[in-house]
Amino acid sequence: MDRIRVRFLPSGEEVHGRPGSTLLELAREAGIPLSAVCGGDGICGGCRVIIQEGDVEATPTTLLTREEIRRGYTLACQTKVSGDVEVLIPPESRSEGAQILLDQDAQRFRALLPAEEEDISYGHDPLVSKVLLETPHPSLEDNLGDQERLLREISRQAKGPPVQMGLKVLQGLPETARKADWKTTATLALRAGVRELVQLEPEDQNRNFGLAVDIGTSTVVAHLVDMASSRTVDAEACYNSQSQYGEEVTRRIIHAERQGMKSLHDAIIDDINRLVTALVSRNTVELKDLTAIVCAGNTAMQSFLLGLDPSRLRKAPYVPAATCPPPVRAAEVGIKINPRGLLYTVPSIGGWVGGDITAGIIATGLHKSDQLTMLLDIGTNGEIVLGSKEWMLACSTSAGPAFEGSGVRSGMRAGQGAIEKVEISPQGHVHYQTIGGTKPRGICGSGLIDLVAELAKTGIIDRSGQLKPGSSRVRENNGLLEFVVVSAERTDGEEDLVLSQADIENLLRAKAAVYAGADILLASVGLRFSDVERLLVAGGFGNYLNREHAVLLGLLPDVELERIRFVGNTAIMGAKLSLLSAEALEQAEQASRSVTYFDLISYPDYYDNFMCAKFIPHTDEERFPSAAEKLKEAAV
Amino acid sequence: MDRIRVRFLPSGEEVHGRPGSTLLELAREAGIPLSAVCGGDGICGGCRVIIQEGDVEATPTTLLTREEIRRGYTLACQTKVSGDVEVLIPPESRSEGAQILLDQDAQRFRALLPAEEEDISYGHDPLVSKVLLETPHPSLEDNLGDQERLLREISRQAKGPPVQMGLKVLQGLPETARKADWKTTATLALRAGVRELVQLEPEDQNRNFGLAVDIGTSTVVAHLVDMASSRTVDAEACYNSQSQYGEEVTRRIIHAERQGMKSLHDAIIDDINRLVTALVSRNTVELKDLTAIVCAGNTAMQSFLLGLDPSRLRKAPYVPAATCPPPVRAAEVGIKINPRGLLYTVPSIGGWVGGDITAGIIATGLHKSDQLTMLLDIGTNGEIVLGSKEWMLACSTSAGPAFEGSGVRSGMRAGQGAIEKVEISPQGHVHYQTIGGTKPRGICGSGLIDLVAELAKTGIIDRSGQLKPGSSRVRENNGLLEFVVVSAERTDGEEDLVLSQADIENLLRAKAAVYAGADILLASVGLRFSDVERLLVAGGFGNYLNREHAVLLGLLPDVELERIRFVGNTAIMGAKLSLLSAEALEQAEQASRSVTYFDLISYPDYYDNFMCAKFIPHTDEERFPSAAEKLKEAAV
Repeated sequence: MDRIRVRFLPSGEEVHGRPGSTLLELAREAGIPLSAVCGGDGICGGCRVIIQEGDVEATPTTLLTREEIRRGYTLACQTKVSGDVEVLIPPESRSEGAQILLDQDAQRFRALLPAEEEDISYGHDPLVSKVLLETPHPSLEDNLGDQERLLREISRQAKGPPVQMGLKVLQGLPETARKADWKTTATLALRAGVRELVQLEPEDQNRNFGLAVDIGTSTVVAHLVDMASSRTVDAEACYNSQSQYGEEVTRRIIHAERQGMKSLHDAIIDDINRLVTALVSRNTVELKDLTAIVCAGNTAMQSFLLGLDPSRLRKAPYVPAATCPPPVRAAEVGIKINPRGLLYTVPSIGGWVGGDITAGIIATGLHKSDQLTMLLDIGTNGEIVLGSKEWMLACSTSAGPAFEGSGVRSGMRAGQGAIEKVEISPQGHVHYQTIGGTKPRGICGSGLIDLVAELAKTGIIDRSGQLKPGSSRVRENNGLLEFVVVSAERTDGEEDLVLSQADIENLLRAKAAVYAGADILLASVGLRFSDVERLLVAGGFGNYLNREHAVLLGLLPDVELERIRFVGNTAIMGAKLSLLSAEALEQAEQASRSVTYFDLISYPDYYDNFMCAKFIPHTDEERFPSAAEKLKEAAV
Repeated sequence: MDRIRVRFLPSGEEVHGRPGSTLLELAREAGIPLSAVCGGDGICGGCRVIIQEGDVEATPTTLLTREEIRRGYTLACQTKVSGDVEVLIPPESRSEGAQILLDQDAQRFRALLPAEEEDISYGHDPLVSKVLLETPHPSLEDNLGDQERLLREISRQAKGPPVQMGLKVLQGLPETARKADWKTTATLALRAGVRELVQLEPEDQNRNFGLAVDIGTSTVVAHLVDMASSRTVDAEACYNSQSQYGEEVTRRIIHAERQGMKSLHDAIIDDINRLVTALVSRNTVELKDLTAIVCAGNTAMQSFLLGLDPSRLRKAPYVPAATCPPPVRAAEVGIKINPRGLLYTVPSIGGWVGGDITAGIIATGLHKSDQLTMLLDIGTNGEIVLGSKEWMLACSTSAGPAFEGSGVRSGMRAGQGAIEKVEISPQGHVHYQTIGGTKPRGICGSGLIDLVAELAKTGIIDRSGQLKPGSSRVRENNGLLEFVVVSAERTDGEEDLVLSQADIENLLRAKAAVYAGADILLASVGLRFSDVERLLVAGGFGNYLNREHAVLLGLLPDVELERIRFVGNTAIMGAKLSLLSAEALEQAEQASRSVTYFDLISYPDYYDNFMCAKFIPHTDEERFPSAAEKLKEAAV
C-alpha cells in the first residue's frame, strides 16, 4: 500500500505513514509530543489539532463544538488519515517535559479495557455513591424523626447495608432537608459492612468523582473517575517525592527509623494533593464532589501513606502494621478532597507483596482464572503471583533499580529523551529510538534490556555478560570495560552514553532475581514454566518491552510468545476497579487473605538458582531452546 | 414487740424504733441525714457510724478495715438493732444540703433490683468491654499483619460482630503490642452492628467503667457502673443547669430558637462533666477507664445533649432530628471520659415521648409483658405507655411543673426542708414531715398531693377544689383565698407557707392532664382502667407518693392498690441496663420503633375529659367508688 505524507505545522516536520494511521500515532512518529493523557481513547480532548489541507476520517466526538469543527479542529487520536495532509498543532495541544510521563502512563490505559479472554467484570457499585432522595414530608400520621425518615427513603431507593451517619451530618440534616423541601442528595460511603452517610446536599447533586492512585516507589499515578458513569475523566502522574530520602524502599524505611516517618508521610501526601489539584482544576471538578480515593501501592508506600510504622518490614518475619487497613477519612491523613470523603487502601498480601499486587490480581482476574497464570510485576522489586481460582502463591524478589533505569551509569527513568529501543546491526551499528523522538539523554529499562540482548546476539558480550575487548565500541575506562552506546556529540548532554561492565552485571542480577524467583515459586508447588498457561507482565515498561529480547536474555521464560502478555499498570487498574465496585474491593480483600506468601530468602536453593540465572539466558540451555538457538545463529 | 431506743451522738437525738430496723432507717426517723448514695445497699460506704454502747447485728462488709471494726465502725445501712444503742455519727458521714438530692435518688436504687414478677433480665454484654489478648508472636509461618493478628485473637476470645479500628489506634498498635510482648487489653465498643477497637492497652487492664445518666428536665442523675461485674459503684446527681434558661422544656426550646443552642448544650455538658469528676475522684477511677456513657432523657434533652436543633419539637408534627441517634465519641460533644469512649443515647419514641420512656419500657419489661401494663412517668410532662408484648401505645400530657413543686407559691423541689407528707386531723391540725427532718422551707410534689387530698377529705375544699372560707386556716389575700400550711415562725424562712386557690387549680390541672391522658389512651383502643393489670408509676416522687391520696385526688385510677406499683427512676434503670447489655439497647431500639405515638391534642374528646378530671376525684363518681366513699365518710 502507498505511504501517505503528513506535515505538521508550525514546525514543518514530515512523516510518511500507512493510510489508516491516526494523527496521534503519526505525530509520535514525527517526535511531536501531543497531549493525550487518556492514552488516545478520545476522552481527554487534549490532542486537538487543526486540519489545514487534505482529507481525514474522524470519529464523532462531543469534545469539539460545531464552530471548532468548521474551523478544522479534530482530535488527533480519533482521526485517521487516508491521504496526504497538513496539520497545525496549536500550542495548547503540545505536551512537553513532565507531560511525557503522563503520556506514557496513559498508554497503559489501553490495558484498562476489559481483558478479552477472562471474565473480570465486576458489578458497578462505587465505594461512594450519590442518591437523589425525594422524601415525603413529615406529618402527624407519618411522624418519623428526620434521620429515620431519610434512612427509610434511602433503604427504599438504594438497597444495601445499614446506613449510619456521624453527628456533624445529623446536626445539619433538619435544616438542609427543609430548605430543599426534602429533595436532597445523599452521599453514601461503604465502610466495613455499613454505609456511612457522609454528606447531605440540597437538591439534585449528581456530580460524584473518585480518584484511583497507584503509589509507586518512583512514580505516583492518579486517575480521576466519574463514579456514576465509570468514565476515566483524566489522568496525571508525578515522581514520588520520597525519592529525596532514598531511591529504594529499604533506604526510605531506614530514613523513617532514624528521622521519623513524618517527612516521608508528608512527601506522599503532598504528591497526592498536587495531583488532585491538577486534576480538579483542569476538569473544573469541585473538591466537594471528589468523595473517594483508592490507593494501591506496595506495603511500605501504604504504611507511609497512613502513617503506619514501616520499620518491621525490613526484618523477618516482615510483618506490616496492617495488610487490610480500614477506610479512613482522607482528611485524617491530610489529603484534600471532600472533607468527609474517604480514603481506601487496596489490601496487601504481606510485607513485601503489596496492595499494588492485589490490585493486579483483581485487574487481571487471576483469582478467577481457570488457567494457571503467572503475574510478574517488574519494578525495583519484582513481585510474582502464581495461581488460578483454586490457589495463589506470591513472592517478592529484589531486582534492584536497573529496570527503572536507576543505578546504571547512563540509565534514566522512562522519560523524554530516554532510549527505549535498541538494535545493533551485524556490522556493529547501534540504532535506537528515544521517547519523544528527541536527542538521547540516557537509557531506560526497556532500552537496557534491548541493548544487552542485542550485545549478546551480536557476540559483543559472552554468555556470562562479559564484554569482549575486540569490538570497536568497547573501550577501557579506569580499568573497566564499557560499551559506547551513543557518543557525546549525538546526545543531549556532554558525555558519551555508555554501558559499563558493572551496569551489565546489575541488569543480569536483576533479571536473574526475577527468573529465579519465578522458577522457585513454581518448583515449590512442583510445577515448571511449561505448565504456566498465561504469563502476564505488568509494570513500568509495559508495552515497550521486547518480548523476544526478554526471553533471549532469560528474564522471561522460553515459552510460546503468545502466552506472554503485557498488561501494563495493573495497580492503577485494580485501584480503579475497586473504586467503582464494592465487589471488586471485596474480592481484593478475599484475594489478599487467600494468597500464600512464599519467602524466597529462606528457600535453600534460591542462591544457586539465582547464580545459574545470571547467565544469558541461563546455565541450563535446555530451559531456553529457542533463545539458545537464536544466540547460536547470531554467533555464526 | 418492744420498742428499742437509739441515741445519736453528738447531737443527742433519740428515736424509738422496732427491733430489726437498720441504723440508717432509724437515723432518718431521727431526721439525721446520713450519706447513703447507694440507697442503703452497702455499696458506697457513706453511712459509717461508730457504735458507742449496745449490741448490733451487721452484715459483713469489705468497706471497713479490721482496725475500724475494732474501734466500733459499722455501716448504718447494714446494721440492724435489737436493743438500745448509742451511736456516734462522724462528721464525714453526715449528708447535708446538696447531698439530700442524692439520697433521694439513691432510694430509687432499690427499684433497680430485678423485678420479681417479670422476666426482665438481659444478657450481660456491656456496650464497651475489655478483652485480655495473649496473642501469638509473628513468625514466617504465621506472618499475618499486626492488625489482622490482633483481630484473629479477638475473634477467638470474644465472639461477636466484625471488629474495626480507627487510624489512631492502628498507628499505635505495633509498638503497644511489642512493648507488652503481645499481651494486651483491647477495649471493644459496639457501634451499629460492628465492634470498634477504641483502645489497646499494654498488659492486663481489667478496670472498665461506664456511666448511666438520666437527663431530667430538672435533675441530672449519674450512676457509675463497673461494667465487668455490673456493680453500681456510686451515684451522683445535680440540678439541670439549663433551668436558668427556663424551667420548662418549651421555654428552653424557645431560648434556643432565639439565642442559639450553645448555652443549653454547654449547660448539660458541664453538668455531666461535673458529675463525672465527682464520681471518678471519689472512687479513684481513672478517666481512661471510663469508656462508655449511656444517656436517657426526653427528646428535647437528647437534642440539647447532641447539639440537634430542637425547634421542631414545639410544632406539629413534633418531629425530632433523630429518634435513634447514632453512638458518637463522647469527646465530640465535650464530655470528658476516655478520649475515644462512646456516648450512646437511649432511643426516643417521638418528639414528646423520649428515651427516658423507652428506658422505662425496658426497665419494667413492659414490652415483654403478658399482662396489660400502663407505665405512668410523672414529672413536668406526664408520659404514658400502655401495652404489653403484643402492642404499645404512648402519649404525653403537659402536667405543668406542679408535681415538681414548681409554679406553686410555697412549692419547692424535693430537697432538704421540703414538706413531703401531710396529714390534717379532723380538728384541722396540720401534721407534716419534711425531708431531712429540718424546719420546713416549702412543699414538694408528694406533699402537695397529700395536702390537697387531706383538704378534700376534711372538707376544707369542695369537689371542684374551691377553698371554703369557713375554716380557721383559710384566709383572704388580695382577694384570693389561701390555706396556711405552716405559719412563718415555724418555718426556716420569714413567710407563711401557704396553698393558694391558684396553687390548687394548678395541681388539679396537672392531675387532670395525667388522668385524662391515660383514660383517652385506653379509650382509643377500647379499654378501661379496669383492664389494666399493672399500673407502674415512675418518676420524681417515687416511693414517697401516698397511693391512697393519689387515688382519692383522682390522679391515679381507683383500682386495687396492689395493681399500682412505684417503680422509681426507670430512666436511669433503663440507661444502666443498656450500658450493661447490648441486648437491652437493641430491645430499646426495637421498642422505640414499635410504640405507636398517640397525639392527645388532636383527639376531639381530650378537652372534655380533662375538664371532668379536674374535679376531685372526677365528675363521674362511678369511676372512683372507693375514693367517693372515703370522701363521703370524711364529710360526715
